Amino acid sequence: MYNEKMFRLGNKRSTIREIFEYAKKRREEIGAENVFDFSIGNPSVPAPKAVNEAIVRIVNETPSVALHGYTSAQGDKGVRDKIAANYARRFHVPLTGDDLYMTCGAAASLTITLKALSCEGDEFITFAPYFPEYAVFAQVGGAKLTVLPSDPTTMLPDFEALEKALSGNVKGVLINSPNNPSGVVYGEAVIEKLADILAKKSAERGKPLYLISDEPYRELVYDESVTVPCPMAYYPHTIVCYSYSKSLSLPGERIGYIAVSPQMEDAREVYAAVCGAGRALGFVCAPVLFQRVAAECDGMTGDLSIYRKNRDLLYNGLKDIGYTCIYPDGAFYLFVKAMEEDSAAFCARAKEFELLLVDGCDFGAEGWVRVAYCVSTEQIARALPLFEKLAKSYLK
Amino acid sequence: MYNEKMFRLGNKRSTIREIFEYAKKRREEIGAENVFDFSIGNPSVPAPKAVNEAIVRIVNETPSVALHGYTSAQGDKGVRDKIAANYARRFHVPLTGDDLYMTCGAAASLTITLKALSCEGDEFITFAPYFPEYAVFAQVGGAKLTVLPSDPTTMLPDFEALEKALSGNVKGVLINSPNNPSGVVYGEAVIEKLADILAKKSAERGKPLYLISDEPYRELVYDESVTVPCPMAYYPHTIVCYSYSKSLSLPGERIGYIAVSPQMEDAREVYAAVCGAGRALGFVCAPVLFQRVAAECDGMTGDLSIYRKNRDLLYNGLKDIGYTCIYPDGAFYLFVKAMEEDSAAFCARAKEFELLLVDGCDFGAEGWVRVAYCVSTEQIARALPLFEKLAKSYLK
Repeated sequence: MYNEKMFRLGNKRSTIREIFEYAKKRREEIGAENVFDFSIGNPSVPAPKAVNEAIVRIVNETPSVALHGYTSAQGDKGVRDKIAANYARRFHVPLTGDDLYMTCGAAASLTITLKALSCEGDEFITFAPYFPEYAVFAQVGGAKLTVLPSDPTTMLPDFEALEKALSGNVKGVLINSPNNPSGVVYGEAVIEKLADILAKKSAERGKPLYLISDEPYRELVYDESVTVPCPMAYYPHTIVCYSYSKSLSLPGERIGYIAVSPQMEDAREVYAAVCGAGRALGFVCAPVLFQRVAAECDGMTGDLSIYRKNRDLLYNGLKDIGYTCIYPDGAFYLFVKAMEEDSAAFCARAKEFELLLVDGCDFGAEGWVRVAYCVSTEQIARALPLFEKLAKSYLK
Repeated sequence: MYNEKMFRLGNKRSTIREIFEYAKKRREEIGAENVFDFSIGNPSVPAPKAVNEAIVRIVNETPSVALHGYTSAQGDKGVRDKIAANYARRFHVPLTGDDLYMTCGAAASLTITLKALSCEGDEFITFAPYFPEYAVFAQVGGAKLTVLPSDPTTMLPDFEALEKALSGNVKGVLINSPNNPSGVVYGEAVIEKLADILAKKSAERGKPLYLISDEPYRELVYDESVTVPCPMAYYPHTIVCYSYSKSLSLPGERIGYIAVSPQMEDAREVYAAVCGAGRALGFVCAPVLFQRVAAECDGMTGDLSIYRKNRDLLYNGLKDIGYTCIYPDGAFYLFVKAMEEDSAAFCARAKEFELLLVDGCDFGAEGWVRVAYCVSTEQIARALPLFEKLAKSYLK
């Protein structure tokens, strides 16, 4: 009567959603200040002031029909030109507005890209830990997602596994750096190595492997020494999927873009396939007011010093207690080793201390948990003694 | 290397897009005032003032993180409750916020609904003339679109053809009233007859046929005597796909909804499948600022008296010249019989008079052309003498 698969997708609450509902109930029972929800990846810092200023200015200055009307499917030309020019200047790549396709955020960037590239039976590779919706998104194009391991001490890709996995069915590799859930940034050496392998295998196969770079956390890095390399500068067959959700703190407004490297073979055809996939999936154009806001605020961020402070407090606090943590160069997640093999059981025990964490199994990494630090600094400070009690409960 | 079908979808310019480009070039050649583009279905009246007032007020009054944050996938609960309550009151149906799913506009409403319902090999039926993207949207769920004829004098569904076509593969019937491109409204008798046939056939098959009602033009009717019936009040297995693009004149902002009738069998399962399909296609939530604007402005419209004036001027003017026209009760399109069998040739000849019309073939109705009257009244007044010259050219 209806599509069973869609029913299951819509009916099954995600773990994070379950925790959200539990937290709501628990707050009513014991008071909001006593529940420590570290499960949600919502930006906790306000959008830069320029965002709301831009909204009001654009609304006041633009005639209604021009303001709220359709743009071309790929987005307003002026918007695309401006964002592409910023990108080209910053990363030294020859990107133009004609290589950019504005989207309704990161999920749309990914479904459109995967639909544009996929032929039936294709396979995309990603590395654990990974964002679990990738598997859902890959299906939209009839492709399947294969998850390869990472080095468990660094959470960086296992390149040996990659070389073995690059069979003829593989259409591309999907990376996410800064990473959700590990917070790890793939540095220049990692991107270079990845580019080398992909270039070599592409040449062997006589057809290119695509590198899809999911970068919603690109701007969220906290140390001067850390830069997020632009994969397009290292590998020609790169498609960047970007979203302003995290950088501008407006995840509900659904605005992002796809950038198709003009240096790839058949770049115009791939770009046209992106346009076709957007059309097929029902994205007529990205929301137009926020296209304009994105163009005006491109390159800005919310106050990252808050996330940095949170990261330092949480990372150092948990290390001091004795937890094994992956040092998070970016995003707003800390990946922590569970104190028992069964990370679901560890999360259940954490819950007894009112600490709500997400089991790493949801990200393909059993034995680990994700602690989202996009919360108030005060919540972290008050939670540390509870993390200590949790740790001590394993010494008994 | 990429998906060929998506490439073709993205690479082939639609006829309307071709005309758009031609008009641009032609305006440069002979002056904007001498080109009469009747091809585009963009609202030409401003959004109601309340829209921009709501934007500015919401932005000024709401803390940033709450304002721009994610809502639940189906949309903000308060937004859904308010819109559903308006709907229930207006149409006397028991719709609640839990039956409503906010979307990124009509195209998204349709792709999500079709994906939610479709199993491989399913068929959806619609009636010519019809919006050609329906065929593209049906494919997203692996279904195919079958186009049945309408009565050529009324442009209302051919029910005999429908009864014959309702085979076991048919999952549902997709209607669009007020209709793009004919402007016809399906009155109560039509909806009743349709509901009867669907109910009878559903009973025979032992499984329900769905009625999908695509209603972006619902508010755009011009005579006191005309009302647009609410299909949900006549047939339980109804899913309404709505968009605020035309009623509030904000097509670029991408905001609409899906309403799943709670009176259908397995209504909760179908609603869950809608949620699943939205997730699978990459719609995380509808743009949040415009969810709130829609809730505040639900039921309002732009100044419809302008469209009414345009319709009357164009319809009466063309009738007086001798054209055969379908009287358009709603939307902002007039369907006109071409003066030769080959409507493409008629459009080509109209072009020589600087009249840019859309060939009915694009809507499955050869021999007809669509004239969009969402233009300035003055453009229509100045175009009538050219329509007269065009008609006279056939008398020679």
